[in-house]
Amino acid sequence: MNILLVNPNTSMPMTRAIAQAAQSVAAPGTTIEAVQPSFGPLSIECHFDEVFAAAGVAEQVRLANSRAVDAVVIACFGDPGLDAAREATAAPVIGIAEAAFYAASFLSTGFSVVTTLNRTVVTAEHLLHRYGFERRCKGVHGTDIPVLDLEGCSEATVARIEAAARTALEQDRSGAIVLGCAGMAPLCATLSDRLGVPVIDGVSAAVKFAESLVSLGLRTSQRGDYAPPPPKAFTGWAAPLGWK
Amino acid sequence: MNILLVNPNTSMPMTRAIAQAAQSVAAPGTTIEAVQPSFGPLSIECHFDEVFAAAGVAEQVRLANSRAVDAVVIACFGDPGLDAAREATAAPVIGIAEAAFYAASFLSTGFSVVTTLNRTVVTAEHLLHRYGFERRCKGVHGTDIPVLDLEGCSEATVARIEAAARTALEQDRSGAIVLGCAGMAPLCATLSDRLGVPVIDGVSAAVKFAESLVSLGLRTSQRGDYAPPPPKAFTGWAAPLGWK
Amino acid sequence: MNILLVNPNTSMPMTRAIAQAAQSVAAPGTTIEAVQPSFGPLSIECHFDEVFAAAGVAEQVRLANSRAVDAVVIACFGDPGLDAAREATAAPVIGIAEAAFYAASFLSTGFSVVTTLNRTVVTAEHLLHRYGFERRCKGVHGTDIPVLDLEGCSEATVARIEAAARTALEQDRSGAIVLGCAGMAPLCATLSDRLGVPVIDGVSAAVKFAESLVSLGLRTSQRGDYAPPPPKAFTGWAAPLGWK
Amino acid sequence: MNILLVNPNTSMPMTRAIAQAAQSVAAPGTTIEAVQPSFGPLSIECHFDEVFAAAGVAEQVRLANSRAVDAVVIACFGDPGLDAAREATAAPVIGIAEAAFYAASFLSTGFSVVTTLNRTVVTAEHLLHRYGFERRCKGVHGTDIPVLDLEGCSEATVARIEAAARTALEQDRSGAIVLGCAGMAPLCATLSDRLGVPVIDGVSAAVKFAESLVSLGLRTSQRGDYAPPPPKAFTGWAAPLGWK
Amino acid sequence: MNILLVNPNTSMPMTRAIAQAAQSVAAPGTTIEAVQPSFGPLSIECHFDEVFAAAGVAEQVRLANSRAVDAVVIACFGDPGLDAAREATAAPVIGIAEAAFYAASFLSTGFSVVTTLNRTVVTAEHLLHRYGFERRCKGVHGTDIPVLDLEGCSEATVARIEAAARTALEQDRSGAIVLGCAGMAPLCATLSDRLGVPVIDGVSAAVKFAESLVSLGLRTSQRGDYAPPPPKAFTGWAAPLGWK
Amino acid sequence: MNILLVNPNTSMPMTRAIAQAAQSVAAPGTTIEAVQPSFGPLSIECHFDEVFAAAGVAEQVRLANSRAVDAVVIACFGDPGLDAAREATAAPVIGIAEAAFYAASFLSTGFSVVTTLNRTVVTAEHLLHRYGFERRCKGVHGTDIPVLDLEGCSEATVARIEAAARTALEQDRSGAIVLGCAGMAPLCATLSDRLGVPVIDGVSAAVKFAESLVSLGLRTSQRGDYAPPPPKAFTGWAAPLGWK
Repeated sequence: MNILLVNPNTSMPMTRAIAQAAQSVAAPGTTIEAVQPSFGPLSIECHFDEVFAAAGVAEQVRLANSRAVDAVVIACFGDPGLDAAREATAAPVIGIAEAAFYAASFLSTGFSVVTTLNRTVVTAEHLLHRYGFERRCKGVHGTDIPVLDLEGCSEATVARIEAAARTALEQDRSGAIVLGCAGMAPLCATLSDRLGVPVIDGVSAAVKFAESLVSLGLRTSQRGDYAPPPPKAFTGWAAPLGWK
Repeated sequence: MNILLVNPNTSMPMTRAIAQAAQSVAAPGTTIEAVQPSFGPLSIECHFDEVFAAAGVAEQVRLANSRAVDAVVIACFGDPGLDAAREATAAPVIGIAEAAFYAASFLSTGFSVVTTLNRTVVTAEHLLHRYGFERRCKGVHGTDIPVLDLEGCSEATVARIEAAARTALEQDRSGAIVLGCAGMAPLCATLSDRLGVPVIDGVSAAVKFAESLVSLGLRTSQRGDYAPPPPKAFTGWAAPLGWK
Repeated sequence: MNILLVNPNTSMPMTRAIAQAAQSVAAPGTTIEAVQPSFGPLSIECHFDEVFAAAGVAEQVRLANSRAVDAVVIACFGDPGLDAAREATAAPVIGIAEAAFYAASFLSTGFSVVTTLNRTVVTAEHLLHRYGFERRCKGVHGTDIPVLDLEGCSEATVARIEAAARTALEQDRSGAIVLGCAGMAPLCATLSDRLGVPVIDGVSAAVKFAESLVSLGLRTSQRGDYAPPPPKAFTGWAAPLGWK
Repeated sequence: MNILLVNPNTSMPMTRAIAQAAQSVAAPGTTIEAVQPSFGPLSIECHFDEVFAAAGVAEQVRLANSRAVDAVVIACFGDPGLDAAREATAAPVIGIAEAAFYAASFLSTGFSVVTTLNRTVVTAEHLLHRYGFERRCKGVHGTDIPVLDLEGCSEATVARIEAAARTALEQDRSGAIVLGCAGMAPLCATLSDRLGVPVIDGVSAAVKFAESLVSLGLRTSQRGDYAPPPPKAFTGWAAPLGWK
Repeated sequence: MNILLVNPNTSMPMTRAIAQAAQSVAAPGTTIEAVQPSFGPLSIECHFDEVFAAAGVAEQVRLANSRAVDAVVIACFGDPGLDAAREATAAPVIGIAEAAFYAASFLSTGFSVVTTLNRTVVTAEHLLHRYGFERRCKGVHGTDIPVLDLEGCSEATVARIEAAARTALEQDRSGAIVLGCAGMAPLCATLSDRLGVPVIDGVSAAVKFAESLVSLGLRTSQRGDYAPPPPKAFTGWAAPLGWK
Repeated sequence: MNILLVNPNTSMPMTRAIAQAAQSVAAPGTTIEAVQPSFGPLSIECHFDEVFAAAGVAEQVRLANSRAVDAVVIACFGDPGLDAAREATAAPVIGIAEAAFYAASFLSTGFSVVTTLNRTVVTAEHLLHRYGFERRCKGVHGTDIPVLDLEGCSEATVARIEAAARTALEQDRSGAIVLGCAGMAPLCATLSDRLGVPVIDGVSAAVKFAESLVSLGLRTSQRGDYAPPPPKAFTGWAAPLGWK
């Protein structure tokens, strides 16, 4: 089974780190093919960054149409380009935010999200609301840690995330922690040990759920609004991405 | 990996049929141990049936505490006893309704549920609302087929379910069908072929998601309201089930 | 008029205390017949306890079918087995949580709930959400008082409940207090005097609302999902409870 | 016990008919004092009518401050002036719409409302939403019968309401009917007989719930936004209604 | 263009102050005609005050039917009589609360409301919920400043509002402030300077949105529940306001 | 005043048509500067198209930073890139969908949306839900008219839209129609005449609301998640769009 893992930002070290996290939980027969957009921001920390990331995800899934892809994982907590990707391939596509929310809901009556910049809290809240987890999620907590500080993450940074998680568990009366950034994937085991509650990394969860859907033979619905895009011309740099 | 599959009703043939459906999708190393309560209704078709089923699920999960269980699947579409089971074991517990809703949400922007007796529609609606899928699910459709008619299901019965599913797809403008009864598991492939959209059987989905959680080392939160039950005496036939 | 008052736990002293609270507010012609399940937990403090209580309520209402019952009150704040009981008899059935929420809504634009163990807060929240009071209720406050400590309740315990109620009124900006446990019924007058706001005990409210419905000749709908359960065999200890 | 029954419109025959319906269900010791505003519309069929009715309810409750009133019932399905009345007296105040919604919720998992002019449907929907019954109510059905046609109601009018109720039960899959106009109170028994489901008249329900609250010694919260109005001058015809 | 500006209370100085605020933002060709009801409270600080204000708004819009009115603005933050006014004229009618919520939503992902008496918070919350801004508004903050203290507002009062706004921005993590009282209109510029975030005065916003609708030729829908009121007799002082 | 009107697709004729519609309602001193992205789809009819359009909007607003822009209007009914644009400039930014929803809410208690391809219905539903209009909008109706068929729109196409609008008004019991595509702007007057209800074109509404905000001196909040994007490198074709 071949899983296309799309890192929506253009940081090569982060692509590699996420790929490693994904591969470490993949089943024996699963290959992880990690890619990143040909353009866009080095990290995704605001709405402006995110629209380029979404287009970048769409680009990569579109370009993968010529390759054998069994499932797609979008490895940024805002799930950028999720709906677009589901139109661009019939393989199942999973965002790491939704995967994390689902996993946390299997394990607790209420979870909290710990994320990076405070300004991304609203993005998480929009997702929660859109997916229907506004009651299950008891709080979203920013740490104001820039995304790229998570590369080769220092103990000080881990301690800050741990502290935010402890505050979240206490204040929100929640039972599990969702890590609100793909870049936090490597910290999952450490935090889980220290906190004594389930700590969910969306990358791992998405990989396992993707494997689950593939093994059940389930693919994205081709009926309605996930049907392939209507054929049309694209212009400018995006010209090769249009549908015939 | 050992998955305890609890059929909440007391129909032995249905326990066997569900176990078979579960085993057929399980990973090579996964064992399915199928059990049913020591008491209660032969099928679950109303709220009265359901409270006995929920107690029966709690009984079976409690009794399994002395055995090695890696995960639990509750194989009735009302997810009876789900919260109780999550208190009674630290192994992850998955209900087939929530598993089906999650799988369908990965594959479509809107799904429909096709179920058995019309009177169970309200049960599905309560679950959808509680889990946060009230917007993602576009409709719940009863067929007034008694649950036990699904054993050794005739072509006429399949045709009725197929017809309800076609109506649902059309009326609800949805992209996937969720089968609203564990007893429909064996029909999943047939219906999927005929309908041309993803058809989700919660039993299979729950087994794969359970395997996913176990392989990630995730267990039910022991913090807050899924903590083990407070010690107390139980009386009557339930006396052996109390917590010390 | 004969009201069947079901205490869903198996504590005989609590059954008696609740019966007394109920009888003290009943109209001259009303008889309170207090019963408890033949099995199950001594108190209801978690989801595991609750599924047995729900089955116990169903058992008692089912067994009362041979007697003249004009209305049923379920005297545990989680309203366990409410839907099942409504199928098992055509007499109106009222849960003390819903009765308390309704009474509080007649008297304030926002109320707070003060309850026992913190872990039961989530149960109250689920009920509020299911019944549609998620906006009217401004907060649910646990006191971590075990249910059985309410029997022969000490001044220290009363003081703790009073303190929690004061905090709730202040923090939640609410105008009334709902007592979140049938075992608190005897404290209602004291707390009301001390707090100077309406304090609602669900047992009393349920008894009066039950009398209201009976005197209006209103009975549970026999149409749709509160219709009598479909006939079917029950097995094990529950065998006598099946429907023909 | 003295219940002030306020008919918010200025139709004397309707005030008398509602008073009769109220008295017929009142307990032996209960007196019904029926009043109507000194001004305003003969019937309430739109938002414009309703604002005058609300002021009229406030006027009547304010004027009753000098009399012994144990409870107030507002007898128009829009519950006009409900919040204002709760500030103007410490006696419990009940609107017939909320009373009807509560009663119907005790008896069915879903109810439908049958009302008068189609344009009043939106008013009922606003109330349902505000009170939290938007999920419990399965539909609101207009009949385009003018309110005053309900006085000395012809068989043709009854038949039209019955037909609308039958359609509602079928389409909405509901289990009970709420009558959406105080003027329908006298038809309640007839419709109940013909339809075979609980038919709820808000006037009767409100009277019984008012008696319930009074007998429990419960009064409107004097804390927060139901506290008595701040003292201030009123001008024009309303001058005598200001608070000192 | 002639805009009828209705101050729903009967304080002449406040009518003048609001009129001035409105005129100062009006387009060159726009005339502001400021009126107030012929009766009712000097300020609107509770539900009781509000029902008279709503009737007063309906009175003034009704009386203006004989004059050329292009749009109506209701200048009290509770939007009293909004629906009634929309029936009473085909000219567009805008409430200052809805106008402020809309403006704030164009400028921030989340806003806070700062208002007068704490007891009016619930009124703002009901409006937010009814209009659909319950997620966009992050908090409503009372200052317990009486409305009439805003006339010739002292620096101490401004400082109190500023302090409440700073608390709101911090606690609610919001990006804009909505002033929750027409009487605060003259403070808008000062507060905006001091706070460094958009501060929205509903009076100005409503005037500009009213001008917008008029210039687009848009008028209130005459279909459905904003159609003109059905003809009927009104009695008492309201007799001249009935519809033929 | 200079309004930047961004057509998110790359159809030059549509950019011109929308610009004309915008200019025709603009105030005397307002200049409309119409632009379109340098890349992307000729029309926006699915999620895949939309992510490129959103990036294109961000590109155009970013490039306009060096020019004097008083307000921005995003002229595609999905409001693509709205949040990103609000970060990229402090000038107020208005999407035509939100503008249309607001205008329709000023004029009716419920409106319906008539749009192009059926598959875009879900996009409108997501916006409605996110903005809080899920109760105010009574239905979204697809016509399966391709967006580019609206250029030089035939009478047959107009008739199809009119028919869909009539069905919507009837089925949804709504009072106004929102046109669900910028390309329908030129049809607004015709449809309004034929239907006899307010017909809202988002382009005109957005222009007037933008003028309103500018004339009130209101600008996008620079606090919280609409603050300017954090400085960072962008790669590939997007390199010039990064923030220093």
